[in-house]
Amino acid sequence: MDPASHLGASRMLVANACRVLGARGLAEDVLGHISLRTGPDRMLVRCRGPREEGLFLTTPADVREVDLDGAPVDGEPSEWAAPNELPIHAEILRVRPDVDAVVHCHPPSVLLAGLEDVPLRPVFGAYNIPAARLALEGVPVYPRSVLVRRPELGREVAAALGTASVLVLRGHGIATVGSGPHAVEQAVGRALALDVLARVSVDCARLGGRAEDLPPEDVAELPDLGGSFNDVTLFRHHLARLRHEGLLLR
Amino acid sequence: MDPASHLGASRMLVANACRVLGARGLAEDVLGHISLRTGPDRMLVRCRGPREEGLFLTTPADVREVDLDGAPVDGEPSEWAAPNELPIHAEILRVRPDVDAVVHCHPPSVLLAGLEDVPLRPVFGAYNIPAARLALEGVPVYPRSVLVRRPELGREVAAALGTASVLVLRGHGIATVGSGPHAVEQAVGRALALDVLARVSVDCARLGGRAEDLPPEDVAELPDLGGSFNDVTLFRHHLARLRHEGLLLR
Amino acid sequence: MDPASHLGASRMLVANACRVLGARGLAEDVLGHISLRTGPDRMLVRCRGPREEGLFLTTPADVREVDLDGAPVDGEPSEWAAPNELPIHAEILRVRPDVDAVVHCHPPSVLLAGLEDVPLRPVFGAYNIPAARLALEGVPVYPRSVLVRRPELGREVAAALGTASVLVLRGHGIATVGSGPHAVEQAVGRALALDVLARVSVDCARLGGRAEDLPPEDVAELPDLGGSFNDVTLFRHHLARLRHEGLLLR
Amino acid sequence: MDPASHLGASRMLVANACRVLGARGLAEDVLGHISLRTGPDRMLVRCRGPREEGLFLTTPADVREVDLDGAPVDGEPSEWAAPNELPIHAEILRVRPDVDAVVHCHPPSVLLAGLEDVPLRPVFGAYNIPAARLALEGVPVYPRSVLVRRPELGREVAAALGTASVLVLRGHGIATVGSGPHAVEQAVGRALALDVLARVSVDCARLGGRAEDLPPEDVAELPDLGGSFNDVTLFRHHLARLRHEGLLLR
Repeated sequence: MDPASHLGASRMLVANACRVLGARGLAEDVLGHISLRTGPDRMLVRCRGPREEGLFLTTPADVREVDLDGAPVDGEPSEWAAPNELPIHAEILRVRPDVDAVVHCHPPSVLLAGLEDVPLRPVFGAYNIPAARLALEGVPVYPRSVLVRRPELGREVAAALGTASVLVLRGHGIATVGSGPHAVEQAVGRALALDVLARVSVDCARLGGRAEDLPPEDVAELPDLGGSFNDVTLFRHHLARLRHEGLLLR
Repeated sequence: MDPASHLGASRMLVANACRVLGARGLAEDVLGHISLRTGPDRMLVRCRGPREEGLFLTTPADVREVDLDGAPVDGEPSEWAAPNELPIHAEILRVRPDVDAVVHCHPPSVLLAGLEDVPLRPVFGAYNIPAARLALEGVPVYPRSVLVRRPELGREVAAALGTASVLVLRGHGIATVGSGPHAVEQAVGRALALDVLARVSVDCARLGGRAEDLPPEDVAELPDLGGSFNDVTLFRHHLARLRHEGLLLR
Repeated sequence: MDPASHLGASRMLVANACRVLGARGLAEDVLGHISLRTGPDRMLVRCRGPREEGLFLTTPADVREVDLDGAPVDGEPSEWAAPNELPIHAEILRVRPDVDAVVHCHPPSVLLAGLEDVPLRPVFGAYNIPAARLALEGVPVYPRSVLVRRPELGREVAAALGTASVLVLRGHGIATVGSGPHAVEQAVGRALALDVLARVSVDCARLGGRAEDLPPEDVAELPDLGGSFNDVTLFRHHLARLRHEGLLLR
Repeated sequence: MDPASHLGASRMLVANACRVLGARGLAEDVLGHISLRTGPDRMLVRCRGPREEGLFLTTPADVREVDLDGAPVDGEPSEWAAPNELPIHAEILRVRPDVDAVVHCHPPSVLLAGLEDVPLRPVFGAYNIPAARLALEGVPVYPRSVLVRRPELGREVAAALGTASVLVLRGHGIATVGSGPHAVEQAVGRALALDVLARVSVDCARLGGRAEDLPPEDVAELPDLGGSFNDVTLFRHHLARLRHEGLLLR
C-alpha cells in the first residue's frame, strides 16, 4: 500500500471513529476529536472545515495531517482548521511515544461524576470488564475546566495523564489513548468503557452509593480478554450500529 | 434579491429553526414559536394554520408576517393565527431595538430548574462554553407561570429580560433573543445552551449540588469563540441532524 | 354515511389512537386499550386477535364491536377476544352517559407517582395548560392494584372515577374519558396530559419537591384553550408524528 | 420435519431472540447469549464468529450446536467460539432437566438494583403481572461478580438459581430459564419481566422506596394469564418491533 492510500484508510478509520463517539452521545454537536500519529512529529486529526456538520457526520476530508503545532503538512488544503484544543493531542503524543491515538470528547456522565465528586470505584465485575479494570487501575483527573488551546495547558493535561490510558478533564470531558496497530479502536473502546463506568457510578450515587468494592477473589476472576476482543470486535459492533443507523462511511 | 424572495428565505430559516427546537425536545407537541423582525413594527412569526402538525413539522407557510399587535401584514392569508403569546415577541421587539429574533419554547430541564430553585451556576467550563458563559452572566427569571397573551404581561416579560440574552419563564419556558444577520441562529443557539446549562444543573442537584463555582483563573481560559462558531456552525450541525432524521426543509 | 362506513372510520380512529399511546410510551408491549361508545349498550374496543402484535401496531381489524358484557355484536368475527379488563370500559360507560370514549393504559410516570405518593400538584402553568388544569381539578385514585376483569371491580373503578375526567389506578395505570364528537381525541389528550403532569411531578420530587402551588392570580391567567386546540390539534400532531415514524394508518 | 430443518428454525428463533435482548437494551454491545437444549448433553448457543457484530445483529449462523463442554457437535464449523461463559448454560442445563432454554444478559436496571441493594418487592400489580409475580416469588441472587468461565463457577450459578426461573448475578447480569415448546420465548419473557421489575424498583428507590407491599386480597386478583399470553404473544410483539426497526430476521 502506498503512503497516500494508507492515509486514505486511516482518514476513513478516524472519521468513522468520530461518528461512533457522536452517535453514542460521547460528545455534543460539533465538539470532540480524534488523532492518529503518522510520524514522530505529525498526526492525522479531525479538523473543522468550511462545511462542518458535527462529529457524528465527520467525513474523511475532515481528517487532515498536521504537525504537533497544528500546521498543515505539505499538500493539505488550508480550508480546514486544526481543533482549538490541538495541544491535548500534541502534548500527549510528544511525551508518550507509546501512544498512537488520542480521543478527546465530552461524555455527560463523566462530566457529572467529575463535578459532583462521584468516585469511580470497582463495584461491578463481569457486567463490563474493561470498565471494571479502569476502576481497578484508578482514573486520574485534570482539575481545570479550561479550554486547552495553549501548549502549556496541553502539557498540564499530559502530565495529569501520566502513564495512564484515560484521563478525566474535570468540568470539561475526557482524553483517552491507544497504542499499536489498533490504536484508534483501543482509544475509542477506552472512552466507551470510561463512559460506562461513569454512568454506573452516577446511577449508584443517586441510590446512595453504598456498594462495596469487589473483593480480591472476585477481581481475580476478571481476566483481560485481550485487545482483539476488547477493541477490534467492539469497534466492529459499533461500525455495524452506525451502518444500521445509516451513518457508516465506507 | 427582491423583498419577496428575501422573506421566502427567512420563512424557510424560521421554519427549520422551529424544527430544530421541536426535534431536540425544547418544546412539546404544538407549543413554541420563533419570530424574526422584518421592520420596526413587524415580524415574521411562526403561526398556527388550519393543518397545524406541531413544531417539529413547521412549514414555511406557517411563518407569517404580522405587526406588533398580531394583525397580518397586507397580502398575508387569514387562515393562520398568530400565537396566543405573540406579546412575548412583540413587547421584546418593541423595547429592544438591538433584537432581531426571539425564541420562545419549553425545555423540560429549565422547567425543573425553575420550579425546584436549582441554581444555574458556573460549575463547568470547556464542556460547553456558551452554556458556561450564560451561567457566568446570570440568567434572569420571570416568576409568573401565566399565559402571556396580553400586552401588559408581555411588557412584564420584556422588563424581566432587561438587557440579557436569555430569560427563564418560571413554570412555563424560556425566551431567548438574537441580533444581526444571524439573529435566528443566535437565538436558537442560546436556547440550546440554556437547555444544556439547566440539564447539567439539574443532574448535579440530584447528586447533591456541591460542585464549586469555577475559579477566576479558569474562567479566564474560556474564550468566547465568536458568533461564527457558536451560532452559524452549530446551526449547520442542527440542520444536518434534521437532514439525517428526514426533517430538513430545503 | 351508512353505518358500516361510519364504523370503518371509527375503527381507524381508535386504531391510530392506540398507536399514539403505544408509540409515546404510555403502555408497554401488548397492554392498553381504547373504547368508543356506539350505542347505549355497545362499543368499539381494541381487542386481541390471533396475530396480536402490540398496541403501537394496532390495526383497524383489532377494533371490534362488543356489548357491555364483552360479547361480540352480530357479524363480528370470533377470533378476537375482548380485553380481560373490559369492565373498566363497560362499567364507566354504564354509569357515565356523558362519556363516549375510555382510554386505559400504563404510563410509567403515573405508576411511580402512585406508588411513591408523589402529589400531582399545580406547580406549573403555561408549560402545559391541560396538565396544569388536571392538577388544579385534582386527580382521583383507585387504590387497588388488581386486574379489573370482573364487573364488580369495574364498578369500583367507575365509582373512583366519579365525575372526573381522569383516574389513577394505583400500581396499575390510568383511565381517562372523553365526550362528544372528538371523544377519542379528548380521552387520548387527557392521558397525555396526565402523563406530563406525573413526569414533572416525579422529576420535581427527585429534586426535593418544594415547588409551591401556583397563586390564584396566576391560575386566573391560564385559560382553557378549548377542545379544538387541546384535542383536535394535538391529536393531529400525534398523527403526524406517527406518520414521520412510519406508523400512521390511513 | 427432518432434524436439519428443525435446527434451522431453532437457530432463527434463537437469533431473533438475541436481537430482541440487544434491541431492548438488556445487553450492551457484544455481550449476552441464549441457549436452547437439543439433547441431554448438547445445545444450540449463540457463539462468536469471525465477523461478530453484536447481539442485536445476531445471525442464524452465529447459533451453533455444542456439547456441555463447549465442543462443537459434528459438522459445526470451527470459526465460531462458544461463549466464555458457556458454563452458565451448561451447568444449569445439567442440573435442571426441566429447563430447555437459558438466557444470559446484562440489564442496567438489574445491575443497579443488585449493587445498591434495592429490594425487588411486590409493590405493583396489574401494571405488569409477570413482573409482579417474579417479585412475589422472590428473586435469588448469586453474589459474585466473576466471569463465569469455569465449570465450578457455573455450578455455583446453577446452585444459586436452584428451582427458580430467574437469577440475579450481582455486579454482572441475569440468568433466566424456560421450558417446553416455547422455552426460548419464556426465558426471554422472564428476562424482560425482571428488567421491568428492576426498573420500577430502582425508580421507586430514587423517590424514597416507601411503597408498601401489595395486600393479599389484591395479590389474589393477579391471575397468571398463561404462557400463551405471557410468552408467545409477547414474543410476537417483540418480533414485530424488530420488524418495525428493520432488524427482524425471517
